[in-house]
Amino acid sequence: MPYASSGHPVASETKSESSSDLTLMEPNGIARPIRCKAAVCKAAGEPLETVEVEVAPPRAHEVRIRVVCTSLCHTDITFWRMKKLRHQHAPASVVESVGEDVEEVAVGDTVVPVFLAQCGECADCLSARSNLCSALPHRTGLMPRDGTTRFSLAATGEPIHHFLSVSSFAEYTVVDVAHVVRVGGALPPEKACLLSCGVATGVGAAWKVAAVEPGSTVAIFGLGAVGLAVAQGSKMRGATRIIGVDLNPDKFEIGKKLGITDFVNPNGIGEQTVSEVIKEMTSGAGADYCFECIGSVSVMAEAFKSSRMGWGKTVVLGVDGSAAPISIPSFDIMRGRSVVGSYLGGIKPKDDIPVLAHKCLDKELELDEFITHQMGFDDINSAFDLLARGKCLRCIIWMDGAKQGNGA
Amino acid sequence: MPYASSGHPVASETKSESSSDLTLMEPNGIARPIRCKAAVCKAAGEPLETVEVEVAPPRAHEVRIRVVCTSLCHTDITFWRMKKLRHQHAPASVVESVGEDVEEVAVGDTVVPVFLAQCGECADCLSARSNLCSALPHRTGLMPRDGTTRFSLAATGEPIHHFLSVSSFAEYTVVDVAHVVRVGGALPPEKACLLSCGVATGVGAAWKVAAVEPGSTVAIFGLGAVGLAVAQGSKMRGATRIIGVDLNPDKFEIGKKLGITDFVNPNGIGEQTVSEVIKEMTSGAGADYCFECIGSVSVMAEAFKSSRMGWGKTVVLGVDGSAAPISIPSFDIMRGRSVVGSYLGGIKPKDDIPVLAHKCLDKELELDEFITHQMGFDDINSAFDLLARGKCLRCIIWMDGAKQGNGA
Repeated sequence: MPYASSGHPVASETKSESSSDLTLMEPNGIARPIRCKAAVCKAAGEPLETVEVEVAPPRAHEVRIRVVCTSLCHTDITFWRMKKLRHQHAPASVVESVGEDVEEVAVGDTVVPVFLAQCGECADCLSARSNLCSALPHRTGLMPRDGTTRFSLAATGEPIHHFLSVSSFAEYTVVDVAHVVRVGGALPPEKACLLSCGVATGVGAAWKVAAVEPGSTVAIFGLGAVGLAVAQGSKMRGATRIIGVDLNPDKFEIGKKLGITDFVNPNGIGEQTVSEVIKEMTSGAGADYCFECIGSVSVMAEAFKSSRMGWGKTVVLGVDGSAAPISIPSFDIMRGRSVVGSYLGGIKPKDDIPVLAHKCLDKELELDEFITHQMGFDDINSAFDLLARGKCLRCIIWMDGAKQGNGA
Repeated sequence: MPYASSGHPVASETKSESSSDLTLMEPNGIARPIRCKAAVCKAAGEPLETVEVEVAPPRAHEVRIRVVCTSLCHTDITFWRMKKLRHQHAPASVVESVGEDVEEVAVGDTVVPVFLAQCGECADCLSARSNLCSALPHRTGLMPRDGTTRFSLAATGEPIHHFLSVSSFAEYTVVDVAHVVRVGGALPPEKACLLSCGVATGVGAAWKVAAVEPGSTVAIFGLGAVGLAVAQGSKMRGATRIIGVDLNPDKFEIGKKLGITDFVNPNGIGEQTVSEVIKEMTSGAGADYCFECIGSVSVMAEAFKSSRMGWGKTVVLGVDGSAAPISIPSFDIMRGRSVVGSYLGGIKPKDDIPVLAHKCLDKELELDEFITHQMGFDDINSAFDLLARGKCLRCIIWMDGAKQGNGA
C-alpha cells in the first residue's frame, strides 16, 4: 500500500466552534468515515499526489483530528527519497471524534500529535531518564495498537499506510491518544505545530539531554531549524557563547537573532579543521557542549573532537542516512568526554511540550524566526522542494489555504 | 634517562614514631637527599632492576614520602611492555619531609599519592563535573610544576624519570602536594593503597560516572580488579542484578563475593553474541549500565550493544593499547543511549578517596577479597608476572618485606 501523507498539524483557534460543528457523527453517536483530501507518496522522490481518501472512525484509544496546519522536517525529505516511502510531520489540529476509552482529550480540543508516544505507564514513561515509550514503541506504517490502517483511497478502497503515527498531510487523520498532546488554544497554530518535532528536538537537546549550564560554551554543527532551536534552547539555559558551524554564511544573520554569538564556516578556515578553530576560540579548551544537527558521522567525529576535556558532551541529533557508525578515539573519550543521542531532544511529549508552549507565550522561546514560508495544502510539493534545497527553515502548510499568501 | 619505579604506596600505622624518626633533615631544618632502594625499569618488558637511588629533597609544593607498601595495576603492565617505559602505582606512605608552601600535610601524616592531581583552584577542580585538574594536567616522566626529576642513580648521578607523578617502586619518593591525599591512620596500609587507583576507578565508575540507580541491572565486561570494584560500587548503589562477563570461569566465584549475581562466559554461549545473551537475560531490554574494563574496542562496541534503549549508559574504563577508535552505530545511540569515559572513575582524589576510606572502615566497601597476594619489595618482578598472567587481583608489595609471608 502507498504511504499516507503526514506532516505536523497545528492547534487552532476553534473555541468558537461548537462540538456539533466539529464532529461527523451518526445520529446514534457513532463517528462516520470521512472523505477528504490527502497528499500521498506513491513513489520514492516523486511529487506527492493529492487524492481523495477515506479516513475511518477512531477505534479504542484513538482520536480523529482535523488538521489545521502542518509543516515538514528533513526527516520527511530523507524518507521521501528512500525506497520505503513515508512522510510525516508536526501538525496542529482539532479533535473531531474520539474512540472508546479516550478520556484525556475531547471533541474540540486543540492538540498536537507527536511521532513519539507517551503511554504514561511503562517503565520508560515512568522514568525521568527516557522519552522512548516502551509500551508503544516507534512504529512507522500502521496504528500502534492493532497494526491496521485508518486510511484508504476513496476511489478503490485500497488501504494507505500511516507514517510515524502522525500522518498529517491530510485534512483529517487518526492518531493514538498516546501520541496526542493537548495544548491550549492561546498559542497560534503555526507555532504550536513547530513544537511537535524539529524545534522541540533542538530546544529539548539543550534543555533535557545536555542540560546546558549557565555560562557555558556551546558549538552547533548545522544551522537548520534543529540547530537554530539548539541555539534558542542554549540561550534559554544561560549559555554565554554559542558557536554556529555551517557552510552557508546566510545562516549567521538569522542565527544571530536566535542566539548564535560566533560563526565558523568550514569553507573559510583554510587548512585548519573546525575542531582546531573551536579550540582556538576557547583558549585551547574546546566547547562544553557540541551538537551535531546534520546527520553525518564525519561531522559527529569532528563535534566530538571539539568537545572539552573533563566534561565535554557531544549530543547527536542528526540521522545519518547511510547508517554508518560513529568513530570515537578511545583515548579521548576517557578524558571525561561523553557522547549521547536522543529522539525529539529527550522531550517527553505530554509533559514537556506544554512547558514549551508556555515559554512561547511568555516570549522566552522565539518561534517567529523559524517560520520562513507559509503556503496552502495544494502547494505541498513546493514545501518539499524548498526544504530539500535548504531554502527555508520551516514552511507552514495551511490545510484550508487561507494564509497561503502570508509567507516570505 | 630510565624510568623510576612507581607503584601505589600505602598508609601506615606510624603514630608511635616521632617526627624526628621520620625525616632526614639537616640540623638547620633543610631536608637532605636520601639514598635508598628503588626498582627501575631499564628496558621494555625486561625485569625491573633494584638499584640504589638518590631521592632529592622536596621543592616548593612538594612532599617526600616514605613508601610503606605499594601495588600495581594493569596500566603498569601495559606501559612496562611499551617502548616508553614506566611503571607506577598506588602506594600508601608516610610524609618524610615537605617543601616550601606545603600546608596541607605535615611530616608523619599517612597519605596516598594519586596519579591525578587536584589543585583545588582550576575550573575543573572547582566543577563537580570534572576530575581532570587543568592546572596540573597528567604528566608522565617529570615533576608537574618545574619539569625536573627528584630521582638519580646513586652510583652515577644519572637522572631517572618519575612515572605518572607517583613513582612508588622506591623506599622514598617525591610527589607534588596536589597529588597527595591524606587518609587517617585507622585504615590498614594494604587497603589504603588500593584506593589510589584500580579499586577507586571501579567503585568511582559506578558511583560517580554512571551514578547507578537502585534496582538497576549492570553488565561488567572484564572481571579483573577494576571490574570487580565496579561490582562493589554497583552493589553499594543498590543495583539488584550485576552480570559479570569474563572468559575465566574462576572469576565467578570471587565475583559472587563482591556482588556479581549472573555470569556470562563468551566461550560458553555458542553462536550467540554476549549482547544477545544479555538482552535475553533482561527480557529483551538490555542492561541499564555497561562497563568496559578490558581495554578492547570490540568489547566496548559489544558493551554498547548490550545497553538498554532509552537510558542505557556505557562507561569505558579500559585503555585500548592500540589506540583504535570505538565504533558506535549512529542509529542506536539516538535511541537514548550514551557512551562516557573517565580516568579514575570520575573520582576527585582529595574529595572522594577519604569517603571511600570511610566506607572501608564501615565495611560498606569490601577490600579484603581484592588482596590475593602479598610479598616483599625484592620480589616485585613476581608481582608483575602474576598480574601479567592474570593470576592475581591485587598483589601488595611491602617495602620492608615484613609481611612477605602473609599472602596467598
